[in-house]
Amino acid sequence: MLTTIANLHKHIDEEVKMGVWMYNRRSSGKIQFLQLRDGSGTVQGVLVKNQVDASIWDEAKSLTQESSLYVWGKVRKDDRAPSGFELDVTNIEVIHIAEEYPIAKKEHGVDFLLDHRHLWIRSERQRAILKIRAEIIRSIQSFLDSDGFSLVDPPVLTPSSCEGTTNLFHTKYFDEDAYLTQSGQLYMEAAAMALGRVYSFGPTFRAEKSKTRRHLIEFWMIEPEMAFVDHEGNLEVQEKLVTHVVQSVLANCKLELKVLGRDISKLENIKAPFPRITYDEAVERLQKAGVEFTWGDDFGAPHETLLAEQFDRPVFITEYPTNIKAFYMKPNPNRPEVVLCADMIAPEGYGEIIGGSQRIDDPELLEKRFKEHDLSAQDYAWYLDLRKYGSVPHSGFGLGLERTVAWICGLEHVRETIPFPRMLNRMYP
Amino acid sequence: MLTTIANLHKHIDEEVKMGVWMYNRRSSGKIQFLQLRDGSGTVQGVLVKNQVDASIWDEAKSLTQESSLYVWGKVRKDDRAPSGFELDVTNIEVIHIAEEYPIAKKEHGVDFLLDHRHLWIRSERQRAILKIRAEIIRSIQSFLDSDGFSLVDPPVLTPSSCEGTTNLFHTKYFDEDAYLTQSGQLYMEAAAMALGRVYSFGPTFRAEKSKTRRHLIEFWMIEPEMAFVDHEGNLEVQEKLVTHVVQSVLANCKLELKVLGRDISKLENIKAPFPRITYDEAVERLQKAGVEFTWGDDFGAPHETLLAEQFDRPVFITEYPTNIKAFYMKPNPNRPEVVLCADMIAPEGYGEIIGGSQRIDDPELLEKRFKEHDLSAQDYAWYLDLRKYGSVPHSGFGLGLERTVAWICGLEHVRETIPFPRMLNRMYP
Repeated sequence: MLTTIANLHKHIDEEVKMGVWMYNRRSSGKIQFLQLRDGSGTVQGVLVKNQVDASIWDEAKSLTQESSLYVWGKVRKDDRAPSGFELDVTNIEVIHIAEEYPIAKKEHGVDFLLDHRHLWIRSERQRAILKIRAEIIRSIQSFLDSDGFSLVDPPVLTPSSCEGTTNLFHTKYFDEDAYLTQSGQLYMEAAAMALGRVYSFGPTFRAEKSKTRRHLIEFWMIEPEMAFVDHEGNLEVQEKLVTHVVQSVLANCKLELKVLGRDISKLENIKAPFPRITYDEAVERLQKAGVEFTWGDDFGAPHETLLAEQFDRPVFITEYPTNIKAFYMKPNPNRPEVVLCADMIAPEGYGEIIGGSQRIDDPELLEKRFKEHDLSAQDYAWYLDLRKYGSVPHSGFGLGLERTVAWICGLEHVRETIPFPRMLNRMYP
Repeated sequence: MLTTIANLHKHIDEEVKMGVWMYNRRSSGKIQFLQLRDGSGTVQGVLVKNQVDASIWDEAKSLTQESSLYVWGKVRKDDRAPSGFELDVTNIEVIHIAEEYPIAKKEHGVDFLLDHRHLWIRSERQRAILKIRAEIIRSIQSFLDSDGFSLVDPPVLTPSSCEGTTNLFHTKYFDEDAYLTQSGQLYMEAAAMALGRVYSFGPTFRAEKSKTRRHLIEFWMIEPEMAFVDHEGNLEVQEKLVTHVVQSVLANCKLELKVLGRDISKLENIKAPFPRITYDEAVERLQKAGVEFTWGDDFGAPHETLLAEQFDRPVFITEYPTNIKAFYMKPNPNRPEVVLCADMIAPEGYGEIIGGSQRIDDPELLEKRFKEHDLSAQDYAWYLDLRKYGSVPHSGFGLGLERTVAWICGLEHVRETIPFPRMLNRMYP
């Protein structure tokens, strides 16, 4: 029976057996210090020459970086150790001596590292990011599951697209044309009419030829959709969700945040309610800051960063001009030139992490939008049906997982936020 | 503030307001019985003529099937009601009067229902299935999360395929050729070497022109992968996981199982350990039952059903012939003509729900397999790397979500197990 490093706290002063990889070794004559990892954590194994058989001593010396082994030893509490424990090694059994490991301690270019992504993820830093990613997903799901939401999986292969097919991946679906989904939202609206509160968790695709530190070709979205919830209620769910996620990571990923050198104080601030400013007010703030900006234009990344810097937590920008937002957003009844939407902009320059809105519930207005946006009435007939048979006020949003991971981890580039990033000209491994 | 039907138990004898759809109405002169749903559940609203304004009485009478409304009323405990409660209605406010609803109480053909899938999911039965699907996913994730696993999302767009491209969806990835994933397993193996115990939850695709009640074009898989775990350890995780899932559904989806008329007694049996028979023994059992079957052939659905009928819980069939299984499976060291694999066959004729194996850890054997299976050494170089740098014994499996849902719900056909099924010649809505 193998113990894991994460479970060592249950075995203090006991003898354990573990399966591990050695990622580093130091030797000081009569003592070898083995840096061991097993995926659940890291621990230092201490091997004393005159306390073990000569054969074991020599075998340990033969271990190259990333060699795998079984190790036996006694668990000793040590408050100076990052994990809180050390292992006094009594025996080892080599499983496999690794060839010379390509990722050395020296600096590598990012292309080299991405070519070796299948090995790069073993590094302490990449592992920490992936653990935090998993915790973010877990905490999102547990928040929504306990708030009356049901997980619903919308289709990936779809017959039509929201607006144009230029940025879509195309495939033949037997004799038909199919596209990889950019968003499951329209399907989630149908599901909300059946199940009340629903959310999706799945991959989405954008065949964009842009190469920025915020874009991936394949990325994961969480898309909640709620019947009988208006614009205001939508924002409340979002700020509570993001608060819960940040606080869960702070509570459950202390070691990982430390590995990343993340400034925790910036995250501790993140508590609902979040500030709300209208698009109008955002434009004023930009102009006051000396930026030339015309009402009706969309914000770029520099604008978002400038606005976000004025707050210590995520900020909602609400009620964008109707013309620059998606066809399904509900206009403000008192001012139809803006829609009941909001983008949530993360602090520290991480940009938009959530986009959401109340949806149009009036069938006539929706049909009008189909025409304005050149959408085929036939392809979207089912979507219109949702407004013909018991239309209700409803709202939803999409949270971009990778940008959220980048923000919470404090990363320069989204390419490190996903196990195997798909980018312009990058599909290997 | 709206209450949901699922939360009525917190408001006994209190006045509540809810957003609901009316799915049926009976009237007996001075009383109207409104069957109401809000996605979280169903409840009967009772409207007494001489206790409400005439305008409210008339408004209630105008409600067509699937019309939406706000309803106010007092929650009354009623043990005869399926939900345990009734609502004494004091007021209603119509949100939207539905057009004539296409799905009437009469029987519809399955093509008609699938064409109206966006509405069909509102039915009590389809809603129950989707709720159970969500509970199955939730219970899988909570089991794995608390057993030391981390969720890892493998890519959907992949440059190459395991074995041939005939059953794959192809797309252009800028200037390259890409295929939609059939399984994230190879990537999960890389992740297991970084994180120890990992699992994926995501969509997979098979462009198969087969039309059976067990096949979908787009289906969801859960793929756990574990370092330092052998064939035997693999089976133990699987049987514990499936036990946990079935017991969670029994505990948390009582009403939904009742709606489906599921024979609960068949599910109550499902407890680890599950029986294990070898492929050899399975062949003998088939021959004893009078089936003509040659050692070395693969089982078809009728064979699986015949074998499964001999047990009251899922059965593992282990150690299939090496020639009929995937290239990456580890041969039995004492008998290399069979591999250390197992399929888990569900009871009651639902067929294989899990396939798993210990993986080859020897780099030379793996390279030999590449050649035997005509796999490009270059495309799979990264996969071979996992055996060059600290190779370890490791195992994993794939659980087919839709077949598991079909089995637990007791459904005839997998098309009802997913919100928007993708089948041969079916991609709408």
